[in-house]
Amino acid sequence: MTEAIDPQVVDYVHDIARRARVASRELALLNRGQKDAALLALADALEAGAADVVAANAEDLQRGRDKGMAEGLLDRLALTPERVQAVAQALRDVAALPDPVGEVVRGSTLANGLTLRQVRVPMGVVGMIYEARPNVTVDAAGLGLKSGNAVILRGGSAAASTNEALVNILRDALTHQGLPADAVNLLTEGGHDAGRALMTARGLVDLVIPRGGANLIQTVVTESTVPVIETGIGNCHVYVDAGADLTKAAAITINSKTHRPSVCNAAESLLVHRAVAADFLPKVLAELAGEGVVLHTDEQAGELAATAGVAHDTATDEHFATEFHALEMSVAVVDDLDAALQHVHRYTSGHTEAIVTEDRAAARRWVNEVDAAAVMVNASTRFTDGGEFGFGAEIGISTQKLHARGPMALPELTTTKWVVEGDGQIR
Amino acid sequence: MTEAIDPQVVDYVHDIARRARVASRELALLNRGQKDAALLALADALEAGAADVVAANAEDLQRGRDKGMAEGLLDRLALTPERVQAVAQALRDVAALPDPVGEVVRGSTLANGLTLRQVRVPMGVVGMIYEARPNVTVDAAGLGLKSGNAVILRGGSAAASTNEALVNILRDALTHQGLPADAVNLLTEGGHDAGRALMTARGLVDLVIPRGGANLIQTVVTESTVPVIETGIGNCHVYVDAGADLTKAAAITINSKTHRPSVCNAAESLLVHRAVAADFLPKVLAELAGEGVVLHTDEQAGELAATAGVAHDTATDEHFATEFHALEMSVAVVDDLDAALQHVHRYTSGHTEAIVTEDRAAARRWVNEVDAAAVMVNASTRFTDGGEFGFGAEIGISTQKLHARGPMALPELTTTKWVVEGDGQIR
Repeated sequence: MTEAIDPQVVDYVHDIARRARVASRELALLNRGQKDAALLALADALEAGAADVVAANAEDLQRGRDKGMAEGLLDRLALTPERVQAVAQALRDVAALPDPVGEVVRGSTLANGLTLRQVRVPMGVVGMIYEARPNVTVDAAGLGLKSGNAVILRGGSAAASTNEALVNILRDALTHQGLPADAVNLLTEGGHDAGRALMTARGLVDLVIPRGGANLIQTVVTESTVPVIETGIGNCHVYVDAGADLTKAAAITINSKTHRPSVCNAAESLLVHRAVAADFLPKVLAELAGEGVVLHTDEQAGELAATAGVAHDTATDEHFATEFHALEMSVAVVDDLDAALQHVHRYTSGHTEAIVTEDRAAARRWVNEVDAAAVMVNASTRFTDGGEFGFGAEIGISTQKLHARGPMALPELTTTKWVVEGDGQIR
Repeated sequence: MTEAIDPQVVDYVHDIARRARVASRELALLNRGQKDAALLALADALEAGAADVVAANAEDLQRGRDKGMAEGLLDRLALTPERVQAVAQALRDVAALPDPVGEVVRGSTLANGLTLRQVRVPMGVVGMIYEARPNVTVDAAGLGLKSGNAVILRGGSAAASTNEALVNILRDALTHQGLPADAVNLLTEGGHDAGRALMTARGLVDLVIPRGGANLIQTVVTESTVPVIETGIGNCHVYVDAGADLTKAAAITINSKTHRPSVCNAAESLLVHRAVAADFLPKVLAELAGEGVVLHTDEQAGELAATAGVAHDTATDEHFATEFHALEMSVAVVDDLDAALQHVHRYTSGHTEAIVTEDRAAARRWVNEVDAAAVMVNASTRFTDGGEFGFGAEIGISTQKLHARGPMALPELTTTKWVVEGDGQIR
């Protein structure tokens, strides 16, 4: 079904993975003090090397401009000395977070005297496959180090020079700290095949996390034989119930859609109970349009948009299924809560689904019946975020059900080990 | 790389999966009382239908005999009225276990007043692919129901008639309880392709758990695009350290190898520190041989076996890598703890690894440095088991690091959902 991976690239990636495994054994034994000291040293090294990073970044930017890269993407790619400092500061913030490794999750003493404890331990070797933003390179290295994992990074080609400069600084600094440079690895060769070799390095790599657009995630999920955590596809809904406080509903709708439309926790679709549609929609649709939101409406919502003189086109099935990542929204009027739930069952990506209602029974049904990483009552979808949840760091937002669901932070980069101690027990 | 799946079989499996999804929404809303009542009713129905089950089982047994199936396999396949009663009793035992659904795992109130709680919820639709033993069919249905999941079962063809009889009884009993029959589904058509369609029904099936031999698990892990939990490959080691109490060491070695050699937590390999090899090995190898264990020894262990007049052959790399599932063991003498750890790093399947030692430092290094689901000090490898750990039920033993590691019970069949409640908060 897919072309074979270049065997030389497989060798290249497997060789790095084997060295990362050796490094990971050393990382697993570090205590928090050692890891935090290393993180602070990495931060200092990045600041000291900021000029090199900015110079490498200038090469990437020039290549981007030559290829006609859009201004928005160029901006995401760009690193100024101030941005390098912010990236370094993020490492210091990770140093300040608690260490998940060693936490005893459960424990007991069995009738035969065996003591049992389930302890958090690092995953081992974690692969990250991601796109443009070079700060992800440093974030992943920092979160990996803090959680005792070696990381293998496959960044976007647009940031190749920047990522190489960053990783060189990090590896040098690790060596200076007496830690293995192979704790942080960047795949610089092999192009697309390197990513494919990484996601099929079963037994050598413990986990792969893709971060990026739907295509990247689809590819990784389909081709990977290494366990994957799927992240970041958000076709999020706001449902305004018959029992909604319409002032709250308007604020939540506008905020969910327009606060930062390019991210996965932005709302893409608005559902309104028909009992409140005439009161609610004309004003809110006008406000959304005023913020520049392109509106795709079903028949009833379209009629209400027309009465308010708001531009709109007819929502298709594809509109309802799309994560726009932009100032664009699908809108439907539903007959009742059941119809809203049916709509969400059909189109949800399992990220975040919000109801606005003062009706306790409706809220309870929404919370119980919607199948998503986060279900919200009377709050903006934008709150599904590791920072907002108080985790202090975020490696991504999982939209799958295995291992981690919702914002993932340091504990989600660990697994557990059962430690069983006895004095000669047999069965 | 693999042949396409018959599209008719894909339709057949997807259709079942869609109906299972609808049923799963209903199951997710049941409270413990409703689920326990249903489990007890299923148990009663199985006992009432025991004659049908035994008759169907006789067909399977006859077909097995006609095909020359080994006695051991025939015995695993056979259901007597007493065994049907035991299978029914297992459902009653599941009814007596706590319900994992609804447990609040974490929670907090944010500075802005939002309340946050992470709640256990069912996975949704769980696929199980397994081999001969028909009791797995009922166990999986029972654990699925208790954890609020719909299950799709693909059992071995050797047990086809038995499984069909069992599932017909369970589905009828569910209907009588006013619950959806589609909570329990058996793939009866499509042969091998049905299993493949199940493991690639991404979006329709939330999780696939293979239970069986290494080949089955390898196939599922490689071909599946649905998230998988890998179970039950155990190349377990017992390491007898220089600091071991040799009486405990002998008992643990014999028990780990011979108590039940066909299961995944049986030991397959014995490592002995050279400082105690001459004292320990001759007697223990003689005892193992006396229990019928075929011994594959490295050079030093072979010499000690020879002094004791114990039959042995030369251990190859493949012997050290093999889970024998039988009265067969590889044996090596190692220079020190480091050499033992290196050996385990190389050959472990990540299931259970035991050290026998009274040396605190050696035990500590073993516990910290061995990367496995369970690490044991002075205890038989046979203790890695959901029943022994006090879980009351076991769906399998995970040897992967994602989601669940070690014995899996009801909580491992759930995921979580973040419930966020506010009164109009926006960002």
